[in-house]
Parts: sequence; structure tokens; C-alpha cells
Amino acid sequence: MNAEIICVGTELLLGNIVNTNAAYISERISRLGIACYNQCVVGDNMERCLAQLKESSSRSDIIILSGGLGPTEDDMTKEAVAQFNKLPLVEDKDSRKSIEEYFAKRNIEPTENNWKQALLPKGAKAIPNANGTAPGMILETKNCTYILLPGPPGELEPMFETQVMPYLASLQSGVLFSKTVKIVGVGESKAETMIKDMIDAQTNPTIATYAKTGEVHIRVTSYASDEKEAKKLVKPVVKELKLRFGNSIYSTDEDVTLERAVMELLVSNSMSLCTVESCTGGLISSRIVGESGASEILKCGFVTYSNKSKRKLVGVKKSTLDKYGAVSKQVASEMAKGGANVSKSDVCISVTGIAGPDGGTEEKPVGLVYIGCYVKGKTTVKEFRFSGNRNKIRNLSATNALILARECILEYISKVNFG
Amino acid sequence: MNAEIICVGTELLLGNIVNTNAAYISERISRLGIACYNQCVVGDNMERCLAQLKESSSRSDIIILSGGLGPTEDDMTKEAVAQFNKLPLVEDKDSRKSIEEYFAKRNIEPTENNWKQALLPKGAKAIPNANGTAPGMILETKNCTYILLPGPPGELEPMFETQVMPYLASLQSGVLFSKTVKIVGVGESKAETMIKDMIDAQTNPTIATYAKTGEVHIRVTSYASDEKEAKKLVKPVVKELKLRFGNSIYSTDEDVTLERAVMELLVSNSMSLCTVESCTGGLISSRIVGESGASEILKCGFVTYSNKSKRKLVGVKKSTLDKYGAVSKQVASEMAKGGANVSKSDVCISVTGIAGPDGGTEEKPVGLVYIGCYVKGKTTVKEFRFSGNRNKIRNLSATNALILARECILEYISKVNFG
Repeated sequence: MNAEIICVGTELLLGNIVNTNAAYISERISRLGIACYNQCVVGDNMERCLAQLKESSSRSDIIILSGGLGPTEDDMTKEAVAQFNKLPLVEDKDSRKSIEEYFAKRNIEPTENNWKQALLPKGAKAIPNANGTAPGMILETKNCTYILLPGPPGELEPMFETQVMPYLASLQSGVLFSKTVKIVGVGESKAETMIKDMIDAQTNPTIATYAKTGEVHIRVTSYASDEKEAKKLVKPVVKELKLRFGNSIYSTDEDVTLERAVMELLVSNSMSLCTVESCTGGLISSRIVGESGASEILKCGFVTYSNKSKRKLVGVKKSTLDKYGAVSKQVASEMAKGGANVSKSDVCISVTGIAGPDGGTEEKPVGLVYIGCYVKGKTTVKEFRFSGNRNKIRNLSATNALILARECILEYISKVNFG
Repeated sequence: MNAEIICVGTELLLGNIVNTNAAYISERISRLGIACYNQCVVGDNMERCLAQLKESSSRSDIIILSGGLGPTEDDMTKEAVAQFNKLPLVEDKDSRKSIEEYFAKRNIEPTENNWKQALLPKGAKAIPNANGTAPGMILETKNCTYILLPGPPGELEPMFETQVMPYLASLQSGVLFSKTVKIVGVGESKAETMIKDMIDAQTNPTIATYAKTGEVHIRVTSYASDEKEAKKLVKPVVKELKLRFGNSIYSTDEDVTLERAVMELLVSNSMSLCTVESCTGGLISSRIVGESGASEILKCGFVTYSNKSKRKLVGVKKSTLDKYGAVSKQVASEMAKGGANVSKSDVCISVTGIAGPDGGTEEKPVGLVYIGCYVKGKTTVKEFRFSGNRNKIRNLSATNALILARECILEYISKVNFG
């Protein structure tokens, strides 16, 4: 069985928004073992919606559409699906009631165009929407099943989790199983060279490498009649990868991000964390707080973007700033030590750098970043020279700060354990 | 002239990464007035790449492909384009030299598969890549022009800016011009109802509304023979929107985000900023620091995720925490006042809330967030009840904190000016 995803919205074609729905839906259906060979985006245009439905229905068993269910004039996804399948639109009583309740609860007067959202192609089953006014719907036809969902991720995702996933799972026979081995500190080319023999020999499971900001993920995917069998196929391959990459692997769990891995390392060693950020401006602490349970380890964070705040909040010496400049090994070191000291934390990560586009000099170019990490009395500082725009440099800095923290904590633990 | 975008990569179909390239390229080509009616994603699979090239070349003048130019086995985009156009792959001397230099500069030994990246379909022109080893390429054929770019955004974007944009501009005759009116504090349905007459009457320019997290954008787009004429068509429509939405509009500039608008407001009034964040954990300060020039206004930021840090860093009273709890109007207020006081800032934004998934109670459910804003002696606190997952609640909190800051600063300024 295969599915494809059609995201509808001129705002996607104009590049006003990033298509996170396609990634979200793809990830979910791949977990169910449903193959996805195509994603596409069309605008709010009836003719091109119909052309895409023709193309897609000729090659896919399931078509998942997102967007274009809103109350506004240019929303026309269900109209296109109805027209393509020669079905009339009829009002769904429950959906109308839900819309009434939605507005009543919020004490807002619905506008006339909101009622349009209660219309469904005849024969479609509504998917209630707990977070908005547009219901989703499932329409089964002879050739193809259409699943329509609203565009806002905050509405689409809960509907997908609670209603679409169980529906799709009920259609599935064979099972795909994937395990992702997440690696830091090794480049993509190098990683692939290290496992070329495994890639050349792959059949089932398959092995693929993906580069992420500062990371390489190796995904091992098997297909079998049941989950137990599929897991059994993946296991020896993951074991071999662990042998080859050792400590560079921070997780093999789909849901564990680098920040969560660092957090879990801190929790399991009863260590607390502080962050002192200049050019990342809170990106690291925000990634940590993005993980639930951060309160167990994060004492506090400082955004010390100005020189004065570096001095006042975490005690960087004026003489150090004067002598070496704010972007220097010495200041990164004092930031890490000072943050740990002020907050009485076991671990403190510091970042100071030039994210650009301005502020670079020949001696200290844009992209020069010093990352410090204090762990129980020992401070390590690394120099990085990143390239890219402000956003990329800041993200690379945050990721490499987490990587350095992981290294330093592991080093500390191994010293404590093995002397 | 129309273009379409094909992003190649199984990692996109598996949902391992979000397709930011499609948004980036779309946004850029729409600025040039090149219509984009389709985006699609195919996996690293020769057969489906060829099928997509057939479909796309039948309907588009320009096909922009991203991804699949890497050194690894499954990278096959240029192989597919070469095969589809019946062209051999030949080594490009300059590209080979660039790859040699890239590795020499970094003191890394290239692996055998890196040299594959110097191969181009015969007749294609290489696009040098300053940030990686995969050159891009432009291949002009009788029917269609193919532009191939590497997948990593940090490589693709600089190549697009400096080399692909000028190439595409040279092909263009008519001009599209867009202006986006960015609104906060008004929902999408309401915004559209407020301008229904304008939408019904639209021809050239066209008017479209887009909902973003906490914002509504209205995009006005005209098409004309030259830029001056196109701008002239857009102007009266934007003027009318300004009349209708007034102060709810924070910008009409494509590049001005909400955080930049707040920043500019602070700069132009010589005011300084401090942030005190609990559940957002540095998201607000990070958004501010994401804008270049943040050093002009941001004194510092505090991530006070723990109760202790709320007390120690910004002086929230123990009695207030005990009596009302960390997530309360009173604590948000003391956080804002305390942050301003400690940092001697004119403005201080504070956030405290329950982002979930755990930590909610009947009285204080997940999604309950208090946002405070101190402006020169006056503190305002607003209660919000957001729904969605942890990430959504945190993002909504950050956006609404910026919206509240904007309101409070505007209120202060109007009081100072008009007494």
C-alpha cells in the first residue's frame, strides 16, 4: 500500500510558509510501514488541484491532503475532491454543532463563511477538530482513499495522532521498522566511507545516511510480516554500527534529540546545568527547555549579549574583555566558569561568537565562535569557524555547544568511574 | 514563464527533515515574478526521478532540483537529469579543482566518492559552491532549463543568491510585485471578513490572507510590465488596508519579522530591553538576537526556569511564589519588574506558564501562560490559555509576548507624546 501527500496552499508556493505538514505526515505514515513515494504542493487553484488529483490517484492508494479547508474564499480542497469524484457537498450536522460550540466557548461571533466548514463531500466521514473550526474527513472511493486535513499544524497533528493513525493502521498488513543511529563528530562522507561495505551489501534492512546540522543520522529500515520479525532484522545491523561508531553515537531512539541526550546524561549523573549565551542568545537554553523534564537539570540561563552583562551577570573580568575582546577563548572560559559559579551548577555551557552579517574583522571574521564548557572544576574551550548566514552560524553554534557538553560530561564520568 | 521545484531525497519522504529549500526557492523566484505552480518531492530512486522529470518537463519552463548531489551512493539527481536528456557525464576541471582546494583548506583527506561530485551532464555549466564540495549546475535544453543545487541550505542559499538569482532575472520580462501587510491581534476569519469587499473585487493586484502563529499576513500582489507600474498598482490597496487595520499592522516590509518590529520600536525610542523567561526558556531572547543589531537594545536575558532562579536572579518574592504559585499573574508581574530593575532596562518581558505535557492541574491546566511587560514603571500582565503540544504552546507564548511588548511600548509612546 502506498500513500502520497498533497499540500494545498498558494502560501507554500510563494514560500511564505515552510511545509512542516509534509514532513510530519511522512514521518507518521512511514512508521506505519506505508510507503510514500511522492509529496507535492499545489496552489489554491481548482484547475491545478484537479490535475494533481488525477495524477496522484493514478499512482497512489491513499491521498492525504492538507490545507484549503479554511473558511476563506480561496480554500477549495474539499470542493476539488468532491468535483473530481463527482460528489455533491452536504452539511454534516455534527460538524456544524462543533463549530457552534467552538465559537460559543470562546465568546466570539462566527462569521458567515465559517459555516462553509461544515460541508463534506457526500459519503465522507468527518474527523472532529478539537483545536479549530475545520473538520477533517475521510472519503473512501473505489480506486483511492482521500484523507483531508486542515493546514495549521496545531489542528492537523492532534487529529492525525488520535484519528488518522488508528484508521491507517487498520489498513496495514506488512510492517516497516526503522531504527536511527544518531552520530555527532563525524562528517557524512566519512561516516558513509566507514560503512561502505554495509551499504553495498544492504538488501533488507536498508541503510541510509542523512546529514543534519552538526549530526549524521544512519537509518536502518526493515520490512517484515510482523513487528517482531522486522525488529529482529534491524538488531544485528545496529549492533555493528555501534561497534564502528562507539561513543560518537548519542542515541538510537527516534524521539531523542541531541539536547535530550545531554539532558538524560545530566539527570542520570545528578548534575545540574547553566547556560551563558552571547551570539546564540538563548537558543541553547530554549532547546533544553523544549524537552519536558528540563526543570530537573536546568538551574538557569543567562543571555549575556552585551559586554556589560557578561561582567555583571557572570563576572567576566573587564581586563579580560579589554585584552582579548568579547569573542575570545578567554572570555568563553570566564563565561562558563562564572555561570557555574553564580548558579552553583555542575555544568555550564558558554558561547561567544560573531554571527554576522556585521561585526567581522580580518582577524576575527564572521563565523568565529568560541564554545566553553565547565564540568565540576574543569573548563574546556573550543574554537570554531562556521560559514553561512546569521541563522546558520547560530544554529551550528548551539548544536556544537551541546556536542561539546556531551563530550566533556562523558570525559568527566569516565574519569570518575575509571580513575 | 513558470518554474517548478523538485526536491530529491528519501529523507524528505520519510519525514526526517523538513523541506525548507522548497520554501526558500519559491520565495525567491516569486520575487522575480516567475510563477511557481508545483513543488514536489521524490526519493533517491532513479525510476521515480525519471517519471517526475517527464511530468515536470511537460508543464514547466524551468525545473529547479535540490538535493541528491552529494558524494554518497544514493545521490543520483544529476545522473537522472543526464539520463533523461540522454547526455553523458563528464568531469568538470574547475569543479575538481574546487573540491581539491576545499579539502586542502580544511586539512581533510577527500574520500574516493568525493570525486564523483566533479561530474556534470555534458553541456551543463557548473555553479561553484563556496560552502561545500558539490557544485550546482545549469543545463539548458530545447524544452526546458534544469537548475541543480545541493540539498544543504547553507550551500544552496548562497549559491542561489549570488548565481541563480541573476541568471533567472536575466530571463524575465514581466514583473510581479508583492507587499505583505503583517497584522497581529486579529484572527484570520475576522481579518478576511473585514476585507471581503476588497477580496471579491480583486483582479490585479490580488489579495490573499495567510495565518501564521499569532499573526495574519495579507499579501497584495500585482503583475505589470515593469516594477514601477507593478508598485503603482499595489500602493492604493496597501493604503486601504492600513486604514482598516491601523495599529494592528506591525509592518509592510517583507523582511521585517515581529521581533524586528519590536526591536526597531525600541531603537527609535532609545529604549533598552530585558527578558525573563520561564517556559519559553530563551525563545524570546533568541528571536531578538536572531536579528542583527540586537546589541543596540538587548541588555540581557534571564532564563528562570526554576523557582529558585526566579528569586535569585530577578528577585521574585518567596511569599509570592508560595501564595500564588510560579504560574500566576503576580509572579509574571514580579519577574518583569525584577528583570527591569536588575538590568536597569526600560522594557522587560516576562513569561511563566505550563507548556506541558505534564504539570497541569484542573485549576492550572497545560496551556495556561502569564505574560508580563514592564515599560518605564508600568507593568501589564495578560493571561493566555493556549492549546497544542509543548512546542506550539512555547511558540505561541513567545509570539504573544512580542505582541504584548509592542502594545505596551506603543501605549507608552502615545502617552508621552499626547499626554
